[in-house]
Amino acid sequence: MRPFKRLLSREEAMEIIKVNVRRIDRVERVRLEEAARRVMAEDVAAGFDVPPFDRAAMDGYAVRAEDTYGASTFSPRRLKLVGELHAGDQFDGEVGPGECVQVATGSPVPKGSDAVVMVEYTRLDGGHVEVQSPVYPGANISPKGEDMREGEAVVKEGEWLTPGKLGALAALGVESVEVYARPIVAVVSTGSEVRPLGDQLEPGQIYDINSYTLSSVIAVNGCVPRRLGIVPDNRANIKKVLHEAAAYDLVVFSGGSSVGSRDFLYDVVEEAGEVLFHGLQVKPGKPTLFGVVDGTPMFGMPGYPTSCLSNAIVFLVPALRVTAGLPPRELRQVRARMAARVVSSSGREQFLTVRLEDGLAYPVFKKSGAITSMARADGYIVIPVNADTVEEGEEVTVTLLG
Amino acid sequence: MRPFKRLLSREEAMEIIKVNVRRIDRVERVRLEEAARRVMAEDVAAGFDVPPFDRAAMDGYAVRAEDTYGASTFSPRRLKLVGELHAGDQFDGEVGPGECVQVATGSPVPKGSDAVVMVEYTRLDGGHVEVQSPVYPGANISPKGEDMREGEAVVKEGEWLTPGKLGALAALGVESVEVYARPIVAVVSTGSEVRPLGDQLEPGQIYDINSYTLSSVIAVNGCVPRRLGIVPDNRANIKKVLHEAAAYDLVVFSGGSSVGSRDFLYDVVEEAGEVLFHGLQVKPGKPTLFGVVDGTPMFGMPGYPTSCLSNAIVFLVPALRVTAGLPPRELRQVRARMAARVVSSSGREQFLTVRLEDGLAYPVFKKSGAITSMARADGYIVIPVNADTVEEGEEVTVTLLG
Repeated sequence: MRPFKRLLSREEAMEIIKVNVRRIDRVERVRLEEAARRVMAEDVAAGFDVPPFDRAAMDGYAVRAEDTYGASTFSPRRLKLVGELHAGDQFDGEVGPGECVQVATGSPVPKGSDAVVMVEYTRLDGGHVEVQSPVYPGANISPKGEDMREGEAVVKEGEWLTPGKLGALAALGVESVEVYARPIVAVVSTGSEVRPLGDQLEPGQIYDINSYTLSSVIAVNGCVPRRLGIVPDNRANIKKVLHEAAAYDLVVFSGGSSVGSRDFLYDVVEEAGEVLFHGLQVKPGKPTLFGVVDGTPMFGMPGYPTSCLSNAIVFLVPALRVTAGLPPRELRQVRARMAARVVSSSGREQFLTVRLEDGLAYPVFKKSGAITSMARADGYIVIPVNADTVEEGEEVTVTLLG
Repeated sequence: MRPFKRLLSREEAMEIIKVNVRRIDRVERVRLEEAARRVMAEDVAAGFDVPPFDRAAMDGYAVRAEDTYGASTFSPRRLKLVGELHAGDQFDGEVGPGECVQVATGSPVPKGSDAVVMVEYTRLDGGHVEVQSPVYPGANISPKGEDMREGEAVVKEGEWLTPGKLGALAALGVESVEVYARPIVAVVSTGSEVRPLGDQLEPGQIYDINSYTLSSVIAVNGCVPRRLGIVPDNRANIKKVLHEAAAYDLVVFSGGSSVGSRDFLYDVVEEAGEVLFHGLQVKPGKPTLFGVVDGTPMFGMPGYPTSCLSNAIVFLVPALRVTAGLPPRELRQVRARMAARVVSSSGREQFLTVRLEDGLAYPVFKKSGAITSMARADGYIVIPVNADTVEEGEEVTVTLLG
C-alpha cells in the first residue's frame, strides 16, 4: 500500500489542473443548424452590409420627408399613392414630389423617398394618402449597414455560439462554420467487483455506476464520453487500458486511485507518465489522483459513486470546459437556512449534499458510498476545513446541482 | 390591415400560454447512457437492497469488535490473519475469535466479523496483525440496504435525470427507462423576402435568420426543432403549412404576425383554430400572436430577428419546458450599474440588451431589426411600462443570455 503524501487543498488541486489542461486544437466544419453551443475556431466578418439596403422599419408609406412638414390631424398633407411594395418586392420607379408608395416593414425604401410615415398616422382615400403627422428625413428607415458593416468582425475565434450569434451568422448567409471539435473523454471503471448493468450480480458484486454519472457530466459540458468498459483490479489490465485511453483528449478513471494493495492506478500512471497530485483535503473525494500520460490529462476518481460524482462536479467540470473551449460553468447558488445541525470534524473541506424545501436545507448525505446522497440532493454546501459545525438555522449558500 | 386590439401585459400573456400548454404524453424507452436530462415517464423502485451485502467502507481488517476492546498503540491486540479479500471476492470461511481477514473498501464483510479496523491503525507482522485502536461493532461497515431498500421508490415519474439519479438507476442495474418523448416543434419562417442561406440575394431580399435562432432555443430546452422551411406571404401557402405544422407538438412561426396587409397569420389561425392573444405590451416584440390549432399551441413571433429571439426567450422557453416536462429555466441574474442613460417612452415593458464590462451594463440595443443587438449582448434589463428612463449609474438587474 502506498500512503497519500500531503493532501492538497481544493485550490491547490484546481491550480495544477488548470496548468495542465488546455483547449483542444482539432477543428471541424459544421452546418449552422448543428452549431448551437459550439465554440468558434475562426473569425467571421460580414461579407456585405446588413441590412443590405435601406429598408422600411415600419408598415406605412415611403415619402419625401419635406412633403410632410407641418402635417397634422387637422391639416393633413395629401400625397398621391403611386405604388404598393411588400417585403421582397422592388419598386422600379422613383417617388416624386407629392407622391408616396405603400411599404411594409422590411421593404426596400423606394428611390426618391427618404422617410416612412407609420400607417397609424395616415388615412387612405382612394388613390391618395392623407399624412397626419410630419416625419424627418430618415424617419422609420433602417439604413444599409446599420446592423453590420461589410468587413466588420461578427463572430470571433473562441466565442461560443449563442442563439444571437447564430442569428448574426445566418444574417450573413453563412451556411457552415469552423468550430473546435468536441473533446472525446475516455471513461474507465475499475474494480473486480464492478459488473455491467445487464449482468446477474454474484455475491460481493455491484453494478457499474460511475461510468454513467461521469458520462452524463461529460456530455452536458461540451464533450463526448467514450466508455472503455470495466477493468478488473490488476496491473496489466489497467496499464493496457491506460495506454488506449491516453489517445483521447482527456481520461477519467474511477476506482483504483486509493492506497489499497489493489489500487494500481498511481503506479501505472507514474510509470507511463507523471502523477501531479494524489490525495485531496476534501470530503468526500480524498482518494483522487491527477496526472498526465502522453500529454493527456488524466483523472483518477474515487470508486465510491458519491465521491466520484462530487469530485467530477468540482474538479472535472472545469477541466472539461477548458478543453472544449467553453466559458466556466456559472454556479447557480441560493441562500437557505440549515434544517439541522451538522458536525464536520474531518479536517477536510466538506461538500455536504442538501435537499431544499421552503427555504430550508436538509442534509441528505448518508455515507460516501451512498449514491442516493446525490440522487436526492438539490445542491450542496461547502463546510470549510477549519469549521467543525453548521448550526441549525444558520444561513448557508447552496450550490445547485443538475 | 387588422389592428391590434388591447395589448396584453407579459403576465397576462404568460398566464394564457400556461393554461394552453401541457406536458407531452408520448413516451419512449431509452438506454441509460442516452437518458441524461430526460424526463421520467415511470416510477422506478429498488429491485434489491443497495448495497446488496454488508460491505467494508474502508481498507483494513475485518475483525470481531470485542477482540479489539482496549487496544492502543502501546498495547495492541494481536490477531491471526486468516485470509485476504478484495472487492469482488467472497470469503468462504468464518472469522473466529482472535482472527481477522484483510479487506478492501467494497469487500463483502466476512462471516463472523462485525467491524473493520482501518489499515492506518494496524501493523502487519508476518501472519499476524497488530490492532492499535478499538472499534465498536458495525464500525466502518456499510450495512446491506443502507443506501436503498428493496421496494423503495428511487426515481419518480416527472423527475428529470440528473447525474445523481442516473447513478441511482445504474446501482439497480436498470438498463433502460421509460421517458417522455422530446416534443417536436415545427419552425416556419414566413416572408416573401426571406431566402435560404445558400441563395444569392436579390435586391430587397434577406436571409432566413429566425429559424436558426429559434431552432437553437428549442434544442437547448429539451425539444427537437423541425424546420418546415420558408413560406412566402400568401394566404394559401400559410394555410397549408399551418395544417402540416399542427401535427407537431408545438408550432412557432416568425413573421406574418403583425397587422400589415400581407400579415395573414391571424386570419389563418383564427379560421383553423383560435387566436388567444395578438399584440403584447412589450418592446421589442409587440406583434406576437398565440393560438391553438387542432389542439396544438402555436406562436406567431415577430419577423424582426431581435424581436423574435427576445420573445422566444421570454415566452417560448417556458412553453417548451412545460411541454418537455422540464422544470422552469432558472434565470441567471447579476446586478450591475448602467453605463449610460436610457430613455424608454414606448408605453411598453422594454427588454433592453446590454453588454457587461467591469460591473457596468452598456446598452447594445440598436433597433429591433438588428440581430447584433442579441449577438453582442451578455444579457438584458427589463424597463417597466411606467418607467421612462434608466439613469447612468443606476443599479439594474441583468438577466444573462446564452
